Amino acid sequence: MTDDFPGILSCPVPILNHDTIQLGHGSGGKMSHDLLEKLFLPRFTNEILDELGDQAQFNLNGMRVALSTDSFVVDPLFFPGGNIGDLAVNGTINDLAVGGAIPKYLSAGFIIEEGFPIEDLHRILLSMESAAKKANVAIVTGDTKVVNKGSADKIFINTTGIGLIKDNIHLSPQRIRPGDKVLVSGTSGDHGITILSSREGFALESSLQTDSAALHDLVHPLLTAFPEQIRVMRDPTRGGVATSVNEFARSAGKSIKLQADAIPVRAEVESACEILGLDPLYVANEGKVLVVVDPEVADQVLDILRNHELGARASIIGEVTDRAEPRVTLVTGLGAETIIDMLPGEQLPRIC
Amino acid sequence: MTDDFPGILSCPVPILNHDTIQLGHGSGGKMSHDLLEKLFLPRFTNEILDELGDQAQFNLNGMRVALSTDSFVVDPLFFPGGNIGDLAVNGTINDLAVGGAIPKYLSAGFIIEEGFPIEDLHRILLSMESAAKKANVAIVTGDTKVVNKGSADKIFINTTGIGLIKDNIHLSPQRIRPGDKVLVSGTSGDHGITILSSREGFALESSLQTDSAALHDLVHPLLTAFPEQIRVMRDPTRGGVATSVNEFARSAGKSIKLQADAIPVRAEVESACEILGLDPLYVANEGKVLVVVDPEVADQVLDILRNHELGARASIIGEVTDRAEPRVTLVTGLGAETIIDMLPGEQLPRIC
Repeated sequence: MTDDFPGILSCPVPILNHDTIQLGHGSGGKMSHDLLEKLFLPRFTNEILDELGDQAQFNLNGMRVALSTDSFVVDPLFFPGGNIGDLAVNGTINDLAVGGAIPKYLSAGFIIEEGFPIEDLHRILLSMESAAKKANVAIVTGDTKVVNKGSADKIFINTTGIGLIKDNIHLSPQRIRPGDKVLVSGTSGDHGITILSSREGFALESSLQTDSAALHDLVHPLLTAFPEQIRVMRDPTRGGVATSVNEFARSAGKSIKLQADAIPVRAEVESACEILGLDPLYVANEGKVLVVVDPEVADQVLDILRNHELGARASIIGEVTDRAEPRVTLVTGLGAETIIDMLPGEQLPRIC
Repeated sequence: MTDDFPGILSCPVPILNHDTIQLGHGSGGKMSHDLLEKLFLPRFTNEILDELGDQAQFNLNGMRVALSTDSFVVDPLFFPGGNIGDLAVNGTINDLAVGGAIPKYLSAGFIIEEGFPIEDLHRILLSMESAAKKANVAIVTGDTKVVNKGSADKIFINTTGIGLIKDNIHLSPQRIRPGDKVLVSGTSGDHGITILSSREGFALESSLQTDSAALHDLVHPLLTAFPEQIRVMRDPTRGGVATSVNEFARSAGKSIKLQADAIPVRAEVESACEILGLDPLYVANEGKVLVVVDPEVADQVLDILRNHELGARASIIGEVTDRAEPRVTLVTGLGAETIIDMLPGEQLPRIC
């Protein structure tokens, strides 16, 4: 090995709890945040990146543009309700949409293992085509790399998307105020439990399938109706609702109290989680949105969500309190209040 | 497996020469083009994608924007003159620059194998930081996925970039005319032979290193001076100069004649290629640009290139002829003319 940047290589290696990358570093939880804060951010720091949204937002010649990237490594590739292809299209569309952007164009980068069946690739491309058309987004450029057998697990897909943000939209956790309501557009954990069931080969006695869907049609009417009152949105993927709400609390420096009874969970997800020792609040979703909103319009926002097929089971699940500590608590049906923290590491690897 | 798109899944699988993905499908050569034309393009067809440049170009509210994506899977990760990190930054910058865009923002997506040393990741990030700063480009958003040990080979990086294109720039192989000159900014094959030497562990008795560099500073003055006369540019990465010139010939429907004696190749690359049975014309570069230009300004373009450190060994290597067939020929020092086609498959896998 040759060191070609002697100056910058004198920069000491940051100290983490491990010397090597662990699965937990990709979990979206505490280990992910630690890696991001100690290794990535010090290198790439700039005022756009440092906002740390699910997307970057910047001005191009006076126009507000959003850019978001996501790599998909889900295992298995095919599962009830979808496959890695539509997941990759919807996932990046959603990162743009929950930031308030209207998704326009996607790039697609494929890393494929030698020996991967052409038929499976074709099937993945068909579902990407279908997802992109449904969302009225064009895949405009791409790249394909092939690696030797054993150097990758079948296929990985990166999608990166560009969207446009209207001048009156400024979503940010900084805008969260005490009293604001927290809404979720539907049931928790459908995607994660679907993947886990597929992977482990146990068939749930149900029609459970991924909730993978493009959310921009669902959230667009909210922003049109209440551009000021919608404080921030996020799609709770890796780490689930609990992790995303914790991110809101941290960034806002506010406390958020969730009501356990108000959080919708399908019966089959609930029972699978009980058997597996998982908590649905930490299980990934791929077609749900969390919305923090001014309490004065919370009921109207709920109605708008419920009027869309993707929001039929929307619910007001909690509120921002005036406590100073940035923590998330959960109030059970019996009135007990417990702290809901981010998980340190990985509950379910390769879920998206 | 569940088929959730029964309608579109009735679409028959296209017939290729293989039932599974081969290394050659990632070569940039004929097999890559076959895969692209039969599998990818029919799915994603739209007027932007169908231009098939190294980047997509489109209008956003009247502004001309370029988007380019590239995944990097180079093996080994560290090699003389650079590593996967600066390669990933420079590679996407170059795809934007050779399309006439001014690179602005990058996203970075990491897929990391469990167990990868934090120290190596840090070193890669340092060189990404350095390359981005040198090129005055900001990395504004990112994503990190971790896969189980054995499910990926150490680390793969996707970069996707956005650039802006001035109103008077319209580079396209369609604009190539008989008589146009073909220039290259420097020596062929440095990157590919550096990687191959590193990978196979044979040290060349030389200081040969990758030519990985951001090209936008080199090409920008050309476009400023001759926005009309520069027909098209491309950075000859996978498949080398021979493949890129063949792409020009195909897209333009014109014949291009190269002069073997005029194509700069380092002595150590030449001798390594002889030993290994490779042709430097097909070996990858990561910091070279091919320019097709109006013959009236070819000498001035050559001077501009040579005035930049990255273009010191620039040369006029051929010209577009008025022959009807879209083919590329090479005239040797003795005057013999042979056809230089694209390679079918992969000469050197995982070169970038």
